Amino acid sequence: MQERAKATRRSLLEAAARLFAERGYAATSVNDISAGSGRTSGAVYFHYASKEGLAVAVVEDRFATWPQLAQRYADETVPPIERLVALSYDIARALVEDPVTRAGARLWTERATINAPLPHPFALWTAAATRLLAQARLAGQLRTQVRPACAARTLVCAFYGLCSFTEALDGAATVIDRLSDWWQLTLPSLRPPGHEDAGSPVPG
Amino acid sequence: MQERAKATRRSLLEAAARLFAERGYAATSVNDISAGSGRTSGAVYFHYASKEGLAVAVVEDRFATWPQLAQRYADETVPPIERLVALSYDIARALVEDPVTRAGARLWTERATINAPLPHPFALWTAAATRLLAQARLAGQLRTQVRPACAARTLVCAFYGLCSFTEALDGAATVIDRLSDWWQLTLPSLRPPGHEDAGSPVPG
Repeated sequence: MQERAKATRRSLLEAAARLFAERGYAATSVNDISAGSGRTSGAVYFHYASKEGLAVAVVEDRFATWPQLAQRYADETVPPIERLVALSYDIARALVEDPVTRAGARLWTERATINAPLPHPFALWTAAATRLLAQARLAGQLRTQVRPACAARTLVCAFYGLCSFTEALDGAATVIDRLSDWWQLTLPSLRPPGHEDAGSPVPG
Repeated sequence: MQERAKATRRSLLEAAARLFAERGYAATSVNDISAGSGRTSGAVYFHYASKEGLAVAVVEDRFATWPQLAQRYADETVPPIERLVALSYDIARALVEDPVTRAGARLWTERATINAPLPHPFALWTAAATRLLAQARLAGQLRTQVRPACAARTLVCAFYGLCSFTEALDGAATVIDRLSDWWQLTLPSLRPPGHEDAGSPVPG
């Protein structure tokens, strides 16, 4: 793709993300996106075919894929449970601060009103958390009762539910502190008896 | 109020709850509620003034108030953390099974689209959980690092987020099992060291 076409696609995607994150999908029109990006409506249809196409592109750009997390996930110099905790903060911060991630999360919540299948990251997160917990178990850093696959699924649901619901109830500014409180109520259950409070990776 | 008027109010409320729970607020009209209850649209306006009035009444009837939980909350023959866990199962079961509770929860989620302030139960739940955790602390049944008010707020957000998000992702039938998994990842963190697995109140 030519540089100019790439720049146009990007500016449409970012304008759409900003509007979807603020107003939601239904309240955002192709005209709003064209006005917000300084491009024509024709450019929206040329590059993304439809408002649905643009919604799928926004979700795929960040929320569903998280390419920026690969390096942290694979960093074997950090113990696996610490990596899991650090990943959760990376995600929570993006959900609070990054407009394209926020837009993806909001679009996924509104998926019933969007006439296109939207991808999501939860299966990927659960697989990653399962591997990290399995590594912790091999290293003797996991309570024996904790089964990695089952715990991973529950942690992903509780984590994402906590972030979404805390934001809805108390505002985005409270999410990171609430996440710290949650890890303090969860980590001792993951660690072997006698090591519950060992080397807390919770910042602050 | 006369018995006949009471019966009419109740049948309107239940028909509305069924429709709100299934289709959501925006997709349910006063005519649908009238048809679903076998009453006239005039009866809706006479008893509830508007669709908004009916939405508030549905939310207040169960979701925001939970009168059925008072007895279990106050049952001092049961240790406080066991009461907290039992209350969470009562709530989760109602959120899965009871149409009026489900309708209230869905309406609260859709509150941005409803032109009336909707009450919610979260401050009440947090206050109740704080008291139970404080009682557990007094009885020496709480890990010393756990601060009741802070933990209560986090547990309420994680619990409700978990239930909502598990249902959205994996369906209502998985909620109770996921809640058991969550308590197994949370209770050891609440209990004093050496008592993490004491007398698990998680059913099944």
